[in-house]
Amino acid sequence: MNNNQLSRQARPEIAEALHLLADVSAEQIMPRFRTRLEVANKAEERFDPVTEADKEAERAIRDVLLERFPEHGIIGEEFGKHQPEAECTWAIDPIDGTRAFIQGMPTWGTLIALTENGRPVCGMMNQPFTGERYWSDGAKSYYRDPAGLVTQIECRSITVAEAEMSTTSPDLFETEPEIRAFTALKQQVRQCRYGTDCYAYTLLAAGHVDVVLETGLEIYDIAALIPIIENAGGKVTDWQGQFPSEGGQILACGDPSLHDRFVSILNSAMAHPSET
Amino acid sequence: MNNNQLSRQARPEIAEALHLLADVSAEQIMPRFRTRLEVANKAEERFDPVTEADKEAERAIRDVLLERFPEHGIIGEEFGKHQPEAECTWAIDPIDGTRAFIQGMPTWGTLIALTENGRPVCGMMNQPFTGERYWSDGAKSYYRDPAGLVTQIECRSITVAEAEMSTTSPDLFETEPEIRAFTALKQQVRQCRYGTDCYAYTLLAAGHVDVVLETGLEIYDIAALIPIIENAGGKVTDWQGQFPSEGGQILACGDPSLHDRFVSILNSAMAHPSET
Repeated sequence: MNNNQLSRQARPEIAEALHLLADVSAEQIMPRFRTRLEVANKAEERFDPVTEADKEAERAIRDVLLERFPEHGIIGEEFGKHQPEAECTWAIDPIDGTRAFIQGMPTWGTLIALTENGRPVCGMMNQPFTGERYWSDGAKSYYRDPAGLVTQIECRSITVAEAEMSTTSPDLFETEPEIRAFTALKQQVRQCRYGTDCYAYTLLAAGHVDVVLETGLEIYDIAALIPIIENAGGKVTDWQGQFPSEGGQILACGDPSLHDRFVSILNSAMAHPSET
Repeated sequence: MNNNQLSRQARPEIAEALHLLADVSAEQIMPRFRTRLEVANKAEERFDPVTEADKEAERAIRDVLLERFPEHGIIGEEFGKHQPEAECTWAIDPIDGTRAFIQGMPTWGTLIALTENGRPVCGMMNQPFTGERYWSDGAKSYYRDPAGLVTQIECRSITVAEAEMSTTSPDLFETEPEIRAFTALKQQVRQCRYGTDCYAYTLLAAGHVDVVLETGLEIYDIAALIPIIENAGGKVTDWQGQFPSEGGQILACGDPSLHDRFVSILNSAMAHPSET
């Protein structure tokens, strides 16, 4: 199932590019953080905000990529696709958690992934306000703390009863089967917390959170986080246990044995209304 | 209504003590943050966690207070009351947001208030992981950013349609009238985000968030935040618009004109099931 593990290899030149991309995007974002930005709504029937910070950060990332990797493709949240059929394609969410960003919360992040043949192999999550950075070079996963100390990170083993769960909002789950699935999982774990965006996935990779359940994600919301979690020993799939090639319903677990059990719980709850 | 504004005066010696208390508590908390702590549950029917970090931080704060202010009272989350009838009493929540703390989120804070005759006059919120500190000396409110830069903070004016709302969790609201009230307010604002604990109240004092609605708070969960918000121009009351002398249902608004309107909306929704 996990093709990524088969081809696991360190790509130092990609890791170096990820750090450069994190730097150039942070230069655009940080002067705009906690200022009174105009907030535009991208959606019609719900609130899907975008700011100048999102756009300028993605522009800065794309400028570097177009110059350094002209043969690569790009899929970005704000400016769409550029030769997306290329073998190597970058997936970018300049600010994952724009809703948190516009409230001044420090739990958003810049997500940058390199995919090969549709499979994310390296990823970066940069949180420039706290000064935290999580990334995978394709072989291992790393954390740089606010003081600049770099450590290799690993997910933890845990029992279901002690598992810590996160999701960005219970309001993500809109259909009856999804609400049943979310509720069933929430009842199994020690606690479920909200408001977490990409930050929860990186806490999972570092062994502080055990399960993240979300739905409605785009590929650039999750691509960067997949290698960070998988190369720390965790597992990220859709709710059927398959590789989430389009985003959608996401289940991330730090402990792979928990993951198998949770796929069963989710699918049982979705199929059988009376059993929750 | 606002006695605090009548007696508003700077108390530099209390502000200096608040910084010392923030320092000594952080020394106990930070080495334990993101380590695998034992988590005890203080409640029977729900999850109300406490860790060694909460206890050692409160102990460190109490040690300083007992030595420097032997005639003052103390009310703390972990170790209860010490001469609480004293004119000057300190209210302490060593880690507000223990549930966030045990997941490694950076949105908890240490809350320390000085109350005079039951009225909070000075307050501190310290977030030692991000390196952020918010406090009021009794006259004005201040923010110290991760780089150490201190600025005076003020709430912002806003329209209802653009207002940013936060609450720690929708699961706080358990009775039908409270759920109706929360839902009614949420429908008025631009967005409502979760997972915020004390961090949202300080973002409100700094003009990034406009309304925080919660229920079930203890006095040490809110006492420190009241002077920080009021001395930045905002308003904190219970849902009836009264001073929340025991905690309970809390409505905090950065724009006082928003506050009056939201008290009406809450009470109308609580009284009339059919009008929501």
